[in-house]
Amino acid sequence: MAKPNAFYAQSGGVTSTINASAAGVLETARANRSRIGKVYAGRNGIIGALTEDLIDTSRDSAAAIAGLTRTPGGAFGSCRYKLKSVDENRAQYERLIEVFRAHDIQFFFYNGGNDSADTCLKVSRLSATMGYPLTCVHVPKTVDNDLVATDNCPGFGSVAKYVATSMREAAYDVESMAKTSTKVFVMEVMGRHAGWITSAVGLAADDANDIPLLLLFPERPFNEAPFMKAVQVNIETRGYCCIGVSEGLRNAEGKFISELGLRDAFGHAQLGGAGETVAKLIRENLGHKYHQALPDYLQRAARHLASKTDVDQSYAVGKAAVEYALKGMNGVMPAIIRTSDRPYRWKIQAVPLDQIANREKMLPDDFITPDGYGITPKARAYLQPLTGGEAAAKYKAGLPDFVRLKNVPVPKKLTPFTI
Amino acid sequence: MAKPNAFYAQSGGVTSTINASAAGVLETARANRSRIGKVYAGRNGIIGALTEDLIDTSRDSAAAIAGLTRTPGGAFGSCRYKLKSVDENRAQYERLIEVFRAHDIQFFFYNGGNDSADTCLKVSRLSATMGYPLTCVHVPKTVDNDLVATDNCPGFGSVAKYVATSMREAAYDVESMAKTSTKVFVMEVMGRHAGWITSAVGLAADDANDIPLLLLFPERPFNEAPFMKAVQVNIETRGYCCIGVSEGLRNAEGKFISELGLRDAFGHAQLGGAGETVAKLIRENLGHKYHQALPDYLQRAARHLASKTDVDQSYAVGKAAVEYALKGMNGVMPAIIRTSDRPYRWKIQAVPLDQIANREKMLPDDFITPDGYGITPKARAYLQPLTGGEAAAKYKAGLPDFVRLKNVPVPKKLTPFTI
Repeated sequence: MAKPNAFYAQSGGVTSTINASAAGVLETARANRSRIGKVYAGRNGIIGALTEDLIDTSRDSAAAIAGLTRTPGGAFGSCRYKLKSVDENRAQYERLIEVFRAHDIQFFFYNGGNDSADTCLKVSRLSATMGYPLTCVHVPKTVDNDLVATDNCPGFGSVAKYVATSMREAAYDVESMAKTSTKVFVMEVMGRHAGWITSAVGLAADDANDIPLLLLFPERPFNEAPFMKAVQVNIETRGYCCIGVSEGLRNAEGKFISELGLRDAFGHAQLGGAGETVAKLIRENLGHKYHQALPDYLQRAARHLASKTDVDQSYAVGKAAVEYALKGMNGVMPAIIRTSDRPYRWKIQAVPLDQIANREKMLPDDFITPDGYGITPKARAYLQPLTGGEAAAKYKAGLPDFVRLKNVPVPKKLTPFTI
Repeated sequence: MAKPNAFYAQSGGVTSTINASAAGVLETARANRSRIGKVYAGRNGIIGALTEDLIDTSRDSAAAIAGLTRTPGGAFGSCRYKLKSVDENRAQYERLIEVFRAHDIQFFFYNGGNDSADTCLKVSRLSATMGYPLTCVHVPKTVDNDLVATDNCPGFGSVAKYVATSMREAAYDVESMAKTSTKVFVMEVMGRHAGWITSAVGLAADDANDIPLLLLFPERPFNEAPFMKAVQVNIETRGYCCIGVSEGLRNAEGKFISELGLRDAFGHAQLGGAGETVAKLIRENLGHKYHQALPDYLQRAARHLASKTDVDQSYAVGKAAVEYALKGMNGVMPAIIRTSDRPYRWKIQAVPLDQIANREKMLPDDFITPDGYGITPKARAYLQPLTGGEAAAKYKAGLPDFVRLKNVPVPKKLTPFTI
């Protein structure tokens, strides 16, 4: 009797470690060849399932699959595409089942964040509602770190390591320039809804690295006057000031700082991002020369600076997903459970998806210092272990050597479907 | 008889490896204790000499000095301050000699780029013109890579490694997002006058990493129509397009793109940097979603991703500077001489400063492909070795562990001097 196949797809914004989860899924499936046939990856996420655009992962060598653990981005392509409810778009679900049936797919692994958990939950209910035998496991991933029930989200720890390292390095630079040149350095980081990444910038400063650092969290409305005062105090007492700004910074009326349409001294509209806007406000208010950095995708793609803890956890949730599926556990997600802060210890545990989908884990209020510009010891205790360990890239001729999979298409069996 | 002391200062924009040059100077001076007394560092560059704000480097341990090789920024502070000619400001030179005489300084090591080479040359002539015995050696450093007579400038190779790595990593990210989201990624890099750093972005793409990448050099006037066509071709054939933009990109009239005051569809002035402006022009012309990164100081502070070749060369020029001074060679600079491309081999050789100061090494025309958007094999042969080797940071609790020197001040002996 033919063994059933599996489907794996990557969803939403990719990370520097989502491919480590892919490796965890693929290697564990290969280790269970007696029970899982082939793993077909969706080209560009769930869209690949809907359009029958499947990739035969069995065509890639074990070395190539292992190389995924050191390759950023999404090796099979990702997508920003959220399935509607079965009631709203039954045709899409019928199509999914048509494709799964045609390719004998009975395992469904979906690697993503909050929206993807919702999609995975909906698909997990297909076996009950539409009579097709499918076991669905969600593989967590999001730099936003906002999935509930898990200690952290794979991808986040590496971003945390990147933004804290970058701010610390830049601070050493700015400090040496401050006497005659740049006195203010602003770095904008990702996280539109929650300040998880902003809080990680706070790790740049510690007892051994006494950096005058202010953070602007999306959880705290931007209040110009006290902020300018705090900047000025740092410049007067320390000669310079570093500032980490969330892209999602808002004013007291809840409007994004990046959309305020501020005008400069010449009446020109200021349409930059949150970091650029804050930097220009400082120049206008205090007159200091500034530099501003916008790492943007660099922060979530920086595999060369990934946290080993993050790579290990990313792999572990992929591995656990296959193990859960083989146990017949449908509609669950492998969550990371912290069992100790120091030393950091963790384990993987299954959590039902209906406890996860459509919820959002916000930054705890007591992670932010009372003045609103820093992180508390509690935040450090949470964040620091996630940045722990180095998972060095493999270098070739001075640059990271990544894996390119063959991504051989699976021959189509069905008529085309328009999404 | 008391041994004469030495003065060392850092000048201009700092790099991730200028402190490795400092370590080369300090360790070599310590190894020659029979001939050099103390090394006094200028706090904030030459300003420290003028204001008698000197740091006693002998107060830091050998371990701390060695740690400079892994610490970015300028450990003693830098400055942007160019001495005028002796005719224009004789008082400054007399003050320098007053300070040097008061502290028995007879060796002068100045670590900087083009402006600093000019300052060092002027100071090197003091012994002849003002009768004070001083041996001056310039220690090269600049991410701009524009000093003549040297294969490359310490600091540049690490920036090259950073920008190429960052673009490669981001490209893997963008490629996976392009189906339903971001299709254009723009990264702006430093280099206002010459496209050395822009050319290094080109290393991101190679035979094993077939990234659709366009470069916009300061050496090539920005011509909107053919550029938009090139972007569109990449998107149609490859699904996405990555773009490396020099901060110094200009239009056909020689005006900086960042200062064009372009207006968007709503009539709002576009005042962003070159990268942001190019990104917005693409959105307006072609309608594609873009992301843009501005690494800014991160690129020149990224000690965690430094090139080992660069760290080695940075140290070597500092070491050679002291050796030259001990041989009585005044007004010279240790230059890096390339003796072989593959394998990369180099040596250090003294070049008279009057052959270096006030000249600028521009990017060779044959480093840029005929279409103006890429680099030639000749450019790769030059650039690649400079990124070679990893000089890993030391990590502590997940983040790079840098050295903080004590920077103990030398007691002042003179009346204050206003610069």
